[in-house]
Amino acid sequence: MRIFACVLTLVAVASAQTKARDDSKKPLTLASQGSFFVGGESKTIAAAGRGPVGAPGEITINQMYVQFQIPMNGAQHVPVVMVHGCCLSSKTWETTPDGRMGWSEYFVRKDRSVYLADQSSRARSGFDPSTINAVKAGTIPPSQLPNVLAATHQTAWSVFRFGPKFGEPFPDGQFPIEAVDELYKQMIPDLNSTLPNPNPTWKNMAALAVKLNGAVLMGHSESGFFPEQAALVDPSGIRGLISIEMPCPELKAAEIATIAKIPTLVMFGDHLGDVQGGPATWNTSFESCNKFVQQVKDKGGDAEMMYLPKMGIKGNSHMLMQDRNSNQLADLILTWIDGHVEAKKKGR
Amino acid sequence: MRIFACVLTLVAVASAQTKARDDSKKPLTLASQGSFFVGGESKTIAAAGRGPVGAPGEITINQMYVQFQIPMNGAQHVPVVMVHGCCLSSKTWETTPDGRMGWSEYFVRKDRSVYLADQSSRARSGFDPSTINAVKAGTIPPSQLPNVLAATHQTAWSVFRFGPKFGEPFPDGQFPIEAVDELYKQMIPDLNSTLPNPNPTWKNMAALAVKLNGAVLMGHSESGFFPEQAALVDPSGIRGLISIEMPCPELKAAEIATIAKIPTLVMFGDHLGDVQGGPATWNTSFESCNKFVQQVKDKGGDAEMMYLPKMGIKGNSHMLMQDRNSNQLADLILTWIDGHVEAKKKGR
Repeated sequence: MRIFACVLTLVAVASAQTKARDDSKKPLTLASQGSFFVGGESKTIAAAGRGPVGAPGEITINQMYVQFQIPMNGAQHVPVVMVHGCCLSSKTWETTPDGRMGWSEYFVRKDRSVYLADQSSRARSGFDPSTINAVKAGTIPPSQLPNVLAATHQTAWSVFRFGPKFGEPFPDGQFPIEAVDELYKQMIPDLNSTLPNPNPTWKNMAALAVKLNGAVLMGHSESGFFPEQAALVDPSGIRGLISIEMPCPELKAAEIATIAKIPTLVMFGDHLGDVQGGPATWNTSFESCNKFVQQVKDKGGDAEMMYLPKMGIKGNSHMLMQDRNSNQLADLILTWIDGHVEAKKKGR
Repeated sequence: MRIFACVLTLVAVASAQTKARDDSKKPLTLASQGSFFVGGESKTIAAAGRGPVGAPGEITINQMYVQFQIPMNGAQHVPVVMVHGCCLSSKTWETTPDGRMGWSEYFVRKDRSVYLADQSSRARSGFDPSTINAVKAGTIPPSQLPNVLAATHQTAWSVFRFGPKFGEPFPDGQFPIEAVDELYKQMIPDLNSTLPNPNPTWKNMAALAVKLNGAVLMGHSESGFFPEQAALVDPSGIRGLISIEMPCPELKAAEIATIAKIPTLVMFGDHLGDVQGGPATWNTSFESCNKFVQQVKDKGGDAEMMYLPKMGIKGNSHMLMQDRNSNQLADLILTWIDGHVEAKKKGR
């Protein structure tokens, strides 16, 4: 009887997997798509690089590139803004390293309008190169060059928790480790050290939420707490905060009170303490976010910590939107949005 | 009678414009979409930037990010690869600065599979930051810093031929000059000076054409001659070459013979000699490309120079994929592909 039930379960799992695969191969109909920028300021520069093109003049900096797709039933749901982490771009949310559908299209197929933002100073958002050019021109010393962060394969393996040490994956790891070279190609230099303080991506995310007349903001890793930082700049457009795997900074009571007005979800994967060496201290980050969630709850807020192993979901890496069970995790988030953001919206 | 004809024409134009606008607002159905990388090599670096994340190790460089959409009838046509110019990204081909549909979606709606590539060292393709970090670390002198090219608003106005001088547009200019600030946001630092020679984007484009089992390659400005350079690396996957507004370099006879086996289209806009000052010398570029086209023809090749003013199409800037008549120009290219690439394909 137990074997029979097991076989039935296996058949059901196989059938569900086939269905998921088939669904992902169905045509996708969009109401519209496109791209635009949020923010950006003019800056006068003295020298602009090579040859006669490099004459002095104005450049635009701190803008944030946004690419969007709106499904046919997009108006039935709150739009979702996704912002990538360190050394990555919006590629994070697209086709996974092993060629499966990423969260951006998956969410669109679940009738959500999706807005992918390249952080200000990264990828299609550009960056301010004037310090680099000033050092080359000899007007400031090399010590003033920005820290251009290039995370190595070795760093990724440890910080993204693919295994206990470089080259050795976790036996139950969900990351498609056979395709890790494709992830390495996504990893690009991080120029956030060229940005002013506060990070303009925060105000740009807040402005995007206002422009969309309400949006859920989602961040990951380096940008994990950006949704909350955006809410502290201007909460008026923000309908939900989703923070995936990052340290949670100490906030003041008034700041917690602002966050507490917005439904907040924090998600962490598995093996937080199982990586030897490397710069990340995931258990410490996890503890800081447990504290943050509790502080928001104590202020009467709707905050939830989804710690996947505690929910019986094992083996997830830091790149959980690319893990083999990425659709399952997306469904958890979609269900949370339905219950915590949209139920609230409908209930108004 | 003349007035009557004129009114009829105006009505027809207005009607065509309304239809174009309506078509662009119809739902778009895709067979599939996604993104991937072509190329990329590992490089060992000594220092990788700020803090403990910056330990020595491997990074991946020279890869080329590609984003694609395949329409339902995509298999009926040869895919089109679009590569942007200097100080720009694939944003070039998306929503125009004034919010109209760009060539990428327009081509998809005309049943073409479209592949947008960020040049290696630009935007989502990343770049090799090791020289910058070595200067910061003091191991090489500042003079070895790459030339990071930041084209200013002033440079764009003159090189992109928006008007005779900065702030003064051409009366008949097709560029949506009221939205020029949105173009400035697209302009991002150009790190091509960090690349090895030959430029890896060339072999990546050739490899992409092979991977697609045949493609038309399109380049613009800095990348205008990249389709030809890709063909000189490996012509086997390349079915057509489209080169928009660039200087054409001198080629050897054997190189011309290689190009002559592939249908080739070169396109130039208006006002080539009407800009005062600035680094661009468009008439010289135009002459060099007329010579190139003639050389290909002399070798028995199918090469065509589309010089828009000669065809009665006036006022086009260098950013002709963003000009007000961008759909009309796209149609010229689509018709050329049908007649020169696909007629040849069907005739085999």
